[in-house]
Amino acid sequence: MKIKTKDVVVPLDVPKNIRDKYVKNYLTITRESGRLMLFAGDQKVEHLNDDFYGEGIHPDDNRPEHLFRIASKAKIGVFATQLGLIASYGMDYPKVPYLVKLNSKTHLIKTAQSDPFSNELVSVEQVVEFKENSGLNILAVGYTLYLGSEYEPEMLRQAAQIIYEAHQHGLIVVLWIYPRGKAIKDEKDPHLIAGATGVAACLGADFVKVNYPKKESCESKEIFKEAILAAGRTKVVCAGGEGDEVKAFLSKLHDQIVVSGAAGNATGRNIHQKSLPEAIKMCNAIYAITIDGKSVEEALKIYNG
Amino acid sequence: MKIKTKDVVVPLDVPKNIRDKYVKNYLTITRESGRLMLFAGDQKVEHLNDDFYGEGIHPDDNRPEHLFRIASKAKIGVFATQLGLIASYGMDYPKVPYLVKLNSKTHLIKTAQSDPFSNELVSVEQVVEFKENSGLNILAVGYTLYLGSEYEPEMLRQAAQIIYEAHQHGLIVVLWIYPRGKAIKDEKDPHLIAGATGVAACLGADFVKVNYPKKESCESKEIFKEAILAAGRTKVVCAGGEGDEVKAFLSKLHDQIVVSGAAGNATGRNIHQKSLPEAIKMCNAIYAITIDGKSVEEALKIYNG
Amino acid sequence: MKIKTKDVVVPLDVPKNIRDKYVKNYLTITRESGRLMLFAGDQKVEHLNDDFYGEGIHPDDNRPEHLFRIASKAKIGVFATQLGLIASYGMDYPKVPYLVKLNSKTHLIKTAQSDPFSNELVSVEQVVEFKENSGLNILAVGYTLYLGSEYEPEMLRQAAQIIYEAHQHGLIVVLWIYPRGKAIKDEKDPHLIAGATGVAACLGADFVKVNYPKKESCESKEIFKEAILAAGRTKVVCAGGEGDEVKAFLSKLHDQIVVSGAAGNATGRNIHQKSLPEAIKMCNAIYAITIDGKSVEEALKIYNG
Amino acid sequence: MKIKTKDVVVPLDVPKNIRDKYVKNYLTITRESGRLMLFAGDQKVEHLNDDFYGEGIHPDDNRPEHLFRIASKAKIGVFATQLGLIASYGMDYPKVPYLVKLNSKTHLIKTAQSDPFSNELVSVEQVVEFKENSGLNILAVGYTLYLGSEYEPEMLRQAAQIIYEAHQHGLIVVLWIYPRGKAIKDEKDPHLIAGATGVAACLGADFVKVNYPKKESCESKEIFKEAILAAGRTKVVCAGGEGDEVKAFLSKLHDQIVVSGAAGNATGRNIHQKSLPEAIKMCNAIYAITIDGKSVEEALKIYNG
Amino acid sequence: MKIKTKDVVVPLDVPKNIRDKYVKNYLTITRESGRLMLFAGDQKVEHLNDDFYGEGIHPDDNRPEHLFRIASKAKIGVFATQLGLIASYGMDYPKVPYLVKLNSKTHLIKTAQSDPFSNELVSVEQVVEFKENSGLNILAVGYTLYLGSEYEPEMLRQAAQIIYEAHQHGLIVVLWIYPRGKAIKDEKDPHLIAGATGVAACLGADFVKVNYPKKESCESKEIFKEAILAAGRTKVVCAGGEGDEVKAFLSKLHDQIVVSGAAGNATGRNIHQKSLPEAIKMCNAIYAITIDGKSVEEALKIYNG
Repeated sequence: MKIKTKDVVVPLDVPKNIRDKYVKNYLTITRESGRLMLFAGDQKVEHLNDDFYGEGIHPDDNRPEHLFRIASKAKIGVFATQLGLIASYGMDYPKVPYLVKLNSKTHLIKTAQSDPFSNELVSVEQVVEFKENSGLNILAVGYTLYLGSEYEPEMLRQAAQIIYEAHQHGLIVVLWIYPRGKAIKDEKDPHLIAGATGVAACLGADFVKVNYPKKESCESKEIFKEAILAAGRTKVVCAGGEGDEVKAFLSKLHDQIVVSGAAGNATGRNIHQKSLPEAIKMCNAIYAITIDGKSVEEALKIYNG
Repeated sequence: MKIKTKDVVVPLDVPKNIRDKYVKNYLTITRESGRLMLFAGDQKVEHLNDDFYGEGIHPDDNRPEHLFRIASKAKIGVFATQLGLIASYGMDYPKVPYLVKLNSKTHLIKTAQSDPFSNELVSVEQVVEFKENSGLNILAVGYTLYLGSEYEPEMLRQAAQIIYEAHQHGLIVVLWIYPRGKAIKDEKDPHLIAGATGVAACLGADFVKVNYPKKESCESKEIFKEAILAAGRTKVVCAGGEGDEVKAFLSKLHDQIVVSGAAGNATGRNIHQKSLPEAIKMCNAIYAITIDGKSVEEALKIYNG
Repeated sequence: MKIKTKDVVVPLDVPKNIRDKYVKNYLTITRESGRLMLFAGDQKVEHLNDDFYGEGIHPDDNRPEHLFRIASKAKIGVFATQLGLIASYGMDYPKVPYLVKLNSKTHLIKTAQSDPFSNELVSVEQVVEFKENSGLNILAVGYTLYLGSEYEPEMLRQAAQIIYEAHQHGLIVVLWIYPRGKAIKDEKDPHLIAGATGVAACLGADFVKVNYPKKESCESKEIFKEAILAAGRTKVVCAGGEGDEVKAFLSKLHDQIVVSGAAGNATGRNIHQKSLPEAIKMCNAIYAITIDGKSVEEALKIYNG
Repeated sequence: MKIKTKDVVVPLDVPKNIRDKYVKNYLTITRESGRLMLFAGDQKVEHLNDDFYGEGIHPDDNRPEHLFRIASKAKIGVFATQLGLIASYGMDYPKVPYLVKLNSKTHLIKTAQSDPFSNELVSVEQVVEFKENSGLNILAVGYTLYLGSEYEPEMLRQAAQIIYEAHQHGLIVVLWIYPRGKAIKDEKDPHLIAGATGVAACLGADFVKVNYPKKESCESKEIFKEAILAAGRTKVVCAGGEGDEVKAFLSKLHDQIVVSGAAGNATGRNIHQKSLPEAIKMCNAIYAITIDGKSVEEALKIYNG
Repeated sequence: MKIKTKDVVVPLDVPKNIRDKYVKNYLTITRESGRLMLFAGDQKVEHLNDDFYGEGIHPDDNRPEHLFRIASKAKIGVFATQLGLIASYGMDYPKVPYLVKLNSKTHLIKTAQSDPFSNELVSVEQVVEFKENSGLNILAVGYTLYLGSEYEPEMLRQAAQIIYEAHQHGLIVVLWIYPRGKAIKDEKDPHLIAGATGVAACLGADFVKVNYPKKESCESKEIFKEAILAAGRTKVVCAGGEGDEVKAFLSKLHDQIVVSGAAGNATGRNIHQKSLPEAIKMCNAIYAITIDGKSVEEALKIYNG
């Protein structure tokens, strides 16, 4: 079920002479499946060292290089992290497919004190320049947007500008959209999450990562469908969640793709908190479901084998 | 009652060598009637998924493509939505006349928490570049302005700049002006709405969309006249309102144009929440009144037939 | 008592090759009298429709074109309004001498809620470009500055920049300066108003419009002298005030010029709230006092026809 | 005790080809003494008309031209005022040595309401352009910085940028630094004032004006030494204070220079609130102490003579 | 144990043709040891005169030149201070290796009043221009970042931009990262400090200075290891702390390097508050441990000798 050049719908803000570059990036990032397996490694800013050191986390994870080792040895679609980290390790991991996460914030300030604002740290233009200087395999850029925050106006503007500029250079754009702020009562409300994917569509993002919806006496895989449809041609990816046991994690992922219609996943802690060998197997299992269309059992075999 | 080139009053901020382009856009967007039938499809940000999914809304509406299908098959003056959505679907709907809505916000933050600010997301320059790259039929840009908000100074500046820049390129400008914020007691006050249309005139907008005024023991169609006159050469359009039954909706529209002197309408939910066939008939009925000068009865026949 | 080229003190921020243009604009705007009769028509933003529609206001005034009819048929020095309105009507009123008011705000937010901020809407550069494109007779730009507002720092900067840039192009600058904000106890205090005219001098404005001072058991025409002197080479203009009966209005104006030493007046509502014929006669009466040095009686004769 | 070219330590942010210009400006502004006699005339914004009109102030002072008359007829090092005022009067006072004060604020908002922010009104680039256009003798620029204000970050940035840019063009920079804001308990604390002069040194200012320190049971002239030393190669100037009787004022000044080691003074009200002849004599007396190294008695003779 | 060109890992945001410059700066700043001995002299803004004058501080320290004398006569890796100070003294101390500290703030406003914001004062571009004009030996730039402050978004952006721009010119970047603000309960928490060094890694800093962690019933030298590892290829430096007796200070430093794995130190007050001879010996003792790998006893001998 490979997709080809003709299957890629190139957004019209990609200039004509850049269309081939966009298509190539799109096919590469989706491994010609149209689906995305995103290995998320931007939490060293987002969660500081909480995700990398402590009980239940393999000691390997406290070294940032752990992320690059996984990204280079496991099957993934793209590895997402900040430009500075890529600049420090990229020379030793030149074949990894990279997504540069353009904004980040720490989790130190809680919503009760101030609504979240994650500021653009480097520009698309700088990423393009960096790609040329470094020769690295940079396919995409990413941006996190908090809908309902008092800083929504500035983040909406940054997101729109990043998408426009990234498409000018044929780069794929992944948005992370989370409703968050004093105005938000239920971040996992399925209707609100469908609103978020709709915003991604209006902004013209290629992919949007949202939280898996939750609602009392509803099945998440069913109520997630509203968001998938509302996204239109923007593809929706999701995360299995934190702290899940492997089988439960993979089943949830499988449901998201096969039942809800999601186009992939964005997974971080469930991969990198493991030792290198386990992390690689976990990636490969996720990849099997996401990209190769395998069943949960087949994926589990990969993980265990 | 067709209007011709000579009937179009070209604002003086349109450069001489761009006048023909402006006139052409003006005649096209008004279907040579001088009146505007605007199909509003920017609510996926403004109201998130509330307008697109739920009780009383046809399931078709949860897919963004529904909007494009309507816009391409029904009679409309212009279809207004965000640039990202146009970039995603425009290649399949190249003949639709587009208005790019330049700013947007969600409705998550209520006025009690913070006054409304809707930020410019893409610039007129980018719209012009996008128009050239895509070859799409982009006639106009739009901007929403909340008078009385604590962010009024920044929004007034953005609106003035957008009008100036759009006219430099011959694009038509539609402003949506709503008095809103902690300082506003009655958003539907006819005198306040006349103030809003007067602001549009001072900014030099081509069209302004306002709410239909309401005042106890007054007829809206009568008290609306103040706003139409106060707008001067800026044309005023209105919405039939939400949740109206079709006949009542069309009658109200007819009143606005024939009695009050409005120059058209901007309609969203009353169109796209219907199934595709019904939405098309609704558009055509609205179009009949707005552009072809038909009676409510004739328009109803179109809707029913 | 005509003034000539040699009587005009050209500020040194006017470049040498632009001096002639400045002198010409100065002589034109003052009708070679050195005094200014400014017809103010920027209230459609500043006061929304309150000044244009309602009891005691002639129905003509609800159409913005009323302002242009007056400006084109009456004797005035300059007609001040927003660029958008000039762009819409200028082609039919090409001989009117225009001042483009660069900033504006509505009166919806009261000081108790937030201190006033009136933001620059269009730049001097855009006015210059507009003047060239349109061929209109644009002599000056204007800016309102609220001293004592919490936004004073930004408005002082905008005012200083506008004066510098306008003088680069030989345009005359009129500042409206009003002390206003939570910190201001008495906006009409003569000493405070003298502070305001002194600020205008330090910024290098050509003219400054202030409120007529009021103080218990003092004659306004006497206490106004402090402000006239404090302004140095910046000329001070004033308004007769609102709701005055004609004779009282003209007498007050005469006092301001002949007793206090003001260099003219800025009048809006007392002109445009009248029918076209009355408005024209009112302008001409004001002009007679301001520019032609007539007595109150002579001016009244003109008004009465 | 004249200083020469070789005695001037040219800061290294002055480009090589501009060094001569810097040295010339430095020698001129210090009258080849290395010390500065600054006649401050920027209070028409800073204190509005309070310093220029009222009891105990000579009526001459209400006309801004009074400042220029003094500056042109008395012995001074440099006359500091806003660009707009210089632009209005400079043609009649072409030989006055000018310092353009780049920022200003009124005193209307008290610290209890909001911490002080004095915004840059014109840029160094504009001053340089103005200097070339006007041919005026502009030697320096000035900026006021409120340490401890909540706006300190923006003012520190503006100050650093102004110094860098001014030095690019060989202009001398004088900072006025006052600790002020809700966080400041004692503005005259000697240790805090030494902090202020140290900040001036870190920013690379040529001169810094601070308040004369006061501390219970200490002699101001002694405790001021800490600040003089902390300033390093940045020269410190001070003011005699307000409302001082002449002899006391001159003695204080003499102490500051001879005992504390200050490099001059910045004096405003004690000069311009006097009649023209008295103001000139006051300047000359101050000059005698500051530049010519005279005693208080000799200076008093000049004042009385 | 000298490092060579081939041992320097050049970040990929350094352009190819600038790599040699980066390597040269890196080898110079670390004295070919890979470790950094940073003499911090930016406290004249950060702490005003508190660190330079008072009980227990040698009188020499009140003159800024004291810092340059130490930097020129002692063994150090780099001397960090503000550009203005370097511009004032650099001509007499041309051989000192300099780091330009790009941002600074005073300590006047406490966190209880407002979260800390330290603003960029001069740009990397200006530093590069200054380096060329002055011919000074500028190897690096520095920036302080307060994680958890409400101004974190702007400071993160400034830090990321500075690193990107500095690397474009081959300059080494040192970040000072301190968690601080109302949201921070324990600034010395080892896990939080590891978060800080991880942020430095994500931003791509070459060195990061953090506080030495403290936790009840833990040895600081042990718990510091988490931060060293979390920093990845970004080298971590630390300070011995304030007010330490010399031997204790050197022992702590030795522990940080030898036990925890830190790559050097950043020391200010423990050096410059001493007389020149003592300060030089103190530097040399610190250098011996940091760069030459000496024992505490050997270093003490240097200090005492």
